[in-house]
Amino acid sequence: MSFVQTLKQARLRNDSLVCVGLDPEPARFPAHLRGAPDAIFAFCRDIVDATADLVCAFKPQIAHFAAQRAEGDLERLITHIHATHPGIPVILDAKRGDIGSTAQHYASEAFERYGADAVTLNPYLGRDSVQPFLDRADKGVILLCHTSNPGAADLQELPVRGTDGGELPLYQHIAMSIARDWNANGNCALVVGATWPEQLAQVRALVGDMPILVPGVGAQGGDVEAVIRNGATRGGEGLIVSSSRAILYAGAGEDFAAAARKAALALRDDINRHLHARP
Amino acid sequence: MSFVQTLKQARLRNDSLVCVGLDPEPARFPAHLRGAPDAIFAFCRDIVDATADLVCAFKPQIAHFAAQRAEGDLERLITHIHATHPGIPVILDAKRGDIGSTAQHYASEAFERYGADAVTLNPYLGRDSVQPFLDRADKGVILLCHTSNPGAADLQELPVRGTDGGELPLYQHIAMSIARDWNANGNCALVVGATWPEQLAQVRALVGDMPILVPGVGAQGGDVEAVIRNGATRGGEGLIVSSSRAILYAGAGEDFAAAARKAALALRDDINRHLHARP
Repeated sequence: MSFVQTLKQARLRNDSLVCVGLDPEPARFPAHLRGAPDAIFAFCRDIVDATADLVCAFKPQIAHFAAQRAEGDLERLITHIHATHPGIPVILDAKRGDIGSTAQHYASEAFERYGADAVTLNPYLGRDSVQPFLDRADKGVILLCHTSNPGAADLQELPVRGTDGGELPLYQHIAMSIARDWNANGNCALVVGATWPEQLAQVRALVGDMPILVPGVGAQGGDVEAVIRNGATRGGEGLIVSSSRAILYAGAGEDFAAAARKAALALRDDINRHLHARP
Repeated sequence: MSFVQTLKQARLRNDSLVCVGLDPEPARFPAHLRGAPDAIFAFCRDIVDATADLVCAFKPQIAHFAAQRAEGDLERLITHIHATHPGIPVILDAKRGDIGSTAQHYASEAFERYGADAVTLNPYLGRDSVQPFLDRADKGVILLCHTSNPGAADLQELPVRGTDGGELPLYQHIAMSIARDWNANGNCALVVGATWPEQLAQVRALVGDMPILVPGVGAQGGDVEAVIRNGATRGGEGLIVSSSRAILYAGAGEDFAAAARKAALALRDDINRHLHARP
């Protein structure tokens, strides 16, 4: 089953657009876990097990593992998710981007080594740089479009002139190009930050039902109501609403996983309330 | 000593603008190394030891290690370069790009975990995404500008309108922004592919003496004469001419390191001949 199909089924089964971002920060772990040799794995596993029936996807962020020499924990974690919670897709948040044979190696890293179902990529190097990923019809290819940070506007909102002579912001040009030219296998998705709700509406208008991964609710302050209003499809789909810190560190004691569950449930219900309140 | 200073001294000492890219492909290793548990380290170490007096930098490409679960080999390799060939800077070719705390983790990965002297980054997420790297005045921050692949033109050559109303290709806008606004610590450099010589001339005209990392000579077909003519500063500096496969796999037998040395020497001498032939 393809990533897009798995994602849809997980959403239906769990009635959820929530994606829990797995960004382990050992300094913020509960005291009883700190210093354990596999603390990173154990922390993430407990979060996963406490929230797996409330999400449509998990999204481990690879830098948080790499900075701690914890690639082994990341491998174990993804294996654990697939074995214990089958049907919940794993998005490897890596934002890779390189060319030729190096792009092939990054695809091997994401899909063979880690067994991810989808990966985030940076489109700046152009379509051929992404081709080894696009060719994997079963895997999701989630391309940065408009990121959640304030500096996103530096380049992503520059007015560019298209081949038809019309002018539009770079992120819209990219969204259109991907929807029109890069998505032959129907496995593309985009990243648009919750902190940029107007831009989310613009992207939704350009890309039909393509899934959009939306980080930036929670700790970064994105507004859930605006995300749903501007980003959901008519059918109430098309979004992967990702929250990391607000869920992972909802509690600081031995009950951190229960606190994370509560936070994930609250986000799911908040999203669903806004979905159902739409005209 | 900062990356830019180390680079300059290595160039002077070895009279070389050559950077050897370390892109290990186990399937192309000589037979006597294949299957050894530390073959990736051993191969790269032998290349390094055979060429260290001919280069201004080494550039390991991280995907080639990550796809093989060989992060440990990469750590050992960089430690070996610094211990055995002090004064030769190591550029970690990672093309990372992310925001906020995640950018901090990628900076930790590059500079603390691996001990790199410089790292390649993707500028698409904007200046704040690169700030944790820019703040490290001792480290080099090498930003993608115009990459060597054919698809580079898809986005990098789009005409964008600047705040002054003038129009210029995106890669030139990026080169100007970095030279003018991102380089307060004087630690920025750019990537421009050897396969795009006209674009290299445009970038050189925009960024003064800023170092430019030029991949794409050798296997990708970039022309050394055009790179020197269009990319070198008046003083004959400002370039880091990177070659990987044409050096690493110059020989296929037990004498692979000697063959690599011969190829690196030929590239160095070719570059220097063109430098000295300039008017």
